[in-house]
Amino acid sequence: MTITITAFERSPDGGKGLARDTRVRWALEEVGQPYEVRLVSFADLKAPAHLAINPFGQIPTYEEGPLSLFETGSIVFHLAETHDGLLPQDHDARARAITWMFAALNTVEPPILELAAARIQEGDRPWTEQRLPLVKDRIRARLDRLSACLGAAVWLDGAFSAGDLMMVSVLLRLRMSGILDEYENLSAYVARGEARPAYIRAFAAQLAVNAR
Amino acid sequence: MTITITAFERSPDGGKGLARDTRVRWALEEVGQPYEVRLVSFADLKAPAHLAINPFGQIPTYEEGPLSLFETGSIVFHLAETHDGLLPQDHDARARAITWMFAALNTVEPPILELAAARIQEGDRPWTEQRLPLVKDRIRARLDRLSACLGAAVWLDGAFSAGDLMMVSVLLRLRMSGILDEYENLSAYVARGEARPAYIRAFAAQLAVNAR
Repeated sequence: MTITITAFERSPDGGKGLARDTRVRWALEEVGQPYEVRLVSFADLKAPAHLAINPFGQIPTYEEGPLSLFETGSIVFHLAETHDGLLPQDHDARARAITWMFAALNTVEPPILELAAARIQEGDRPWTEQRLPLVKDRIRARLDRLSACLGAAVWLDGAFSAGDLMMVSVLLRLRMSGILDEYENLSAYVARGEARPAYIRAFAAQLAVNAR
Repeated sequence: MTITITAFERSPDGGKGLARDTRVRWALEEVGQPYEVRLVSFADLKAPAHLAINPFGQIPTYEEGPLSLFETGSIVFHLAETHDGLLPQDHDARARAITWMFAALNTVEPPILELAAARIQEGDRPWTEQRLPLVKDRIRARLDRLSACLGAAVWLDGAFSAGDLMMVSVLLRLRMSGILDEYENLSAYVARGEARPAYIRAFAAQLAVNAR
């Protein structure tokens, strides 16, 4: 059955690969599944047809025959569960890889989302300049621990998994801030993710849309 | 094999059930699994023994023989996957229930965490009073859509699932703010969660620790 995802016809980042469709494209490339893309405008997100697939009016969405999903975490997990390549076979190792997916999305990403909100939604407020260091310190509190945990390992728990795909994707959002550069091993970890052939193909595909 | 989770010996909320061990206790009660609790202090969270189980120094953790997990989402998913009662059998319905778990944790909870940070970590800052309405509006933007999606349904997608367990748990954090009261159907949805016998047992168990 054809897999169709949604992506922005013009991403707010202009093609830096930070819109969440890149995470799903990367997972699709890792598991070797072809896919089609339906491009949507910001106005389309609020249309009933889109809200019927993603009630929060976001991208990406995922359609495969009668199944339609939203939430990047859920889509990546669905692909990891139904194809080889993103989750280990061993039951305990699989549970730990899933743990890293949730850690990326619910422990590491929230303060990073806060930084984005501070800049984009509160960028013109008088308190923002003073407040940004506090928000950045909340991110560092997570990265200090993540960096200590990763140490000199290549990936978070053995072979590359959906947990690494998600953690690298979350950390990529920090590159522009300079915070990632403060952590040598996390920078190298992210670079290893970006060097994977599947990531390179996913990045190029989203850039092709945004460079038009 | 014995299941052991960690919880605060004194929860910051004094027993309101908002610490994340309640989510795991609830899932354990839904699937009918007995469990033991190892109580930890704030100092314990930073000890090497705890960081070896949860690198971010948080509760809860989950130990079952050789398997040790962290992240509430991952623990609840592990329980849902290995026992009946929290995920539907049908593959597509199961994928949608998992979608709601991720939606709770990565779309609805982040602005709620931001509100907590604004109050607890920035409560004494000069900008906080002016800033709180902006943060609350970011929560409302999510709840407007969630409320429209739930409509008059009892649960988010058919029978009660791990997705509902997580969404109700996330929304419970809003009760004190009054924002939940602005949404009649979401308030009733949360109340239905709290009325489940498994939730009642989980709440009582965490309260028994904190009422000592």
